[in-house]
Amino acid sequence: MGDGPILHEYAASGNCYKIRLTAALLDMAIERREYDIMKGETRTPDFLAGVNANGRIPVLQIGDRFLPESNAACFWLAEGTHLVPHDRFDRADMLHWMFWEQYNHEPNVATLRFWMRWIGEENLSALQRALIPAKQEAGRAALALMDGHLATHDWLAGQDISLADIALYAYTHVAEESGLFDLGDCPGIRQWIARIEAKPGYVAMAA
Amino acid sequence: MGDGPILHEYAASGNCYKIRLTAALLDMAIERREYDIMKGETRTPDFLAGVNANGRIPVLQIGDRFLPESNAACFWLAEGTHLVPHDRFDRADMLHWMFWEQYNHEPNVATLRFWMRWIGEENLSALQRALIPAKQEAGRAALALMDGHLATHDWLAGQDISLADIALYAYTHVAEESGLFDLGDCPGIRQWIARIEAKPGYVAMAA
Repeated sequence: MGDGPILHEYAASGNCYKIRLTAALLDMAIERREYDIMKGETRTPDFLAGVNANGRIPVLQIGDRFLPESNAACFWLAEGTHLVPHDRFDRADMLHWMFWEQYNHEPNVATLRFWMRWIGEENLSALQRALIPAKQEAGRAALALMDGHLATHDWLAGQDISLADIALYAYTHVAEESGLFDLGDCPGIRQWIARIEAKPGYVAMAA
Repeated sequence: MGDGPILHEYAASGNCYKIRLTAALLDMAIERREYDIMKGETRTPDFLAGVNANGRIPVLQIGDRFLPESNAACFWLAEGTHLVPHDRFDRADMLHWMFWEQYNHEPNVATLRFWMRWIGEENLSALQRALIPAKQEAGRAALALMDGHLATHDWLAGQDISLADIALYAYTHVAEESGLFDLGDCPGIRQWIARIEAKPGYVAMAA
């Protein structure tokens, strides 16, 4: 065990994968500690008091300090590297896509994958079931907005891959796993996925 | 009209206020352009094609480029100033609170204010009405988490006010307007609100 960053995670979570992919593209080693969210292992008193009062993974531990929120952890790892644009506007534009991901994309595309594939439609509450059509519509709109941008840009912000691409790749490339989205309609997204997967150091979600 | 940044906004939106408050605390001038979201003025073809394909305000215009997402706009204004911590961990920790705000706080605390005070409970859809209890519970949990942190820290990240405080102040200080939250239970938050409002350059939401 070294003194490098430690990722507290649930490996199948796209939010955790963002951090592993960032580290891999930067050739940085991170230690991994797995928690089973399906068994409530991030809601224990020890986890809430010692790792994250919000009861969620991922959390990136740096020494004795703990950093929740996937996109903030990616920023800690990548600041000053080629994954954060050098230009001031582009750097803020990268953050624009990352905030948009958490507000417009993740609660729809990622939540539906979790509900349909992990929890199972038959185990959802009546309120969750009632939300599926609205989340499907909002997720489709988010994917269409990305696809429109990627029709005329190779990358979401700046001139090369950045944390914006990593943050949005995580749940976009597995969006179809919910059974509610079809990337066949999104040629811009499919070509962008191929560009990301061709980058040196790329690691798959299951790696 | 100068060549400084232009804020495309709806002034009563806390997300827009974050940007005005950041500029005020930095003594930076910004030009303001108002859109009435209640009349759909951010969903017109011209707005979608020219300002923000996502149909939302705020958008910060810098020259001929457009930056959506309130927290990204604040970052563009404040990077390199005292509102962004100098320490690497603290800077990422500031972003942690800003991502948390968009995922855990805004969709509950701000959405309920908008629904109850702007749209009116009687005009909500059945699905929106069904979501009120869950959003109230999640909003209370978010406020309790902030209050717990602020019981032992003057500021959310680092040693002084940062964009994290501005991002969370915007909707926290008006949380009670929905009629569903009570800051009387949150002494840490109330003292933190007073610290923010005492900062030189502070401007109120209605200013």
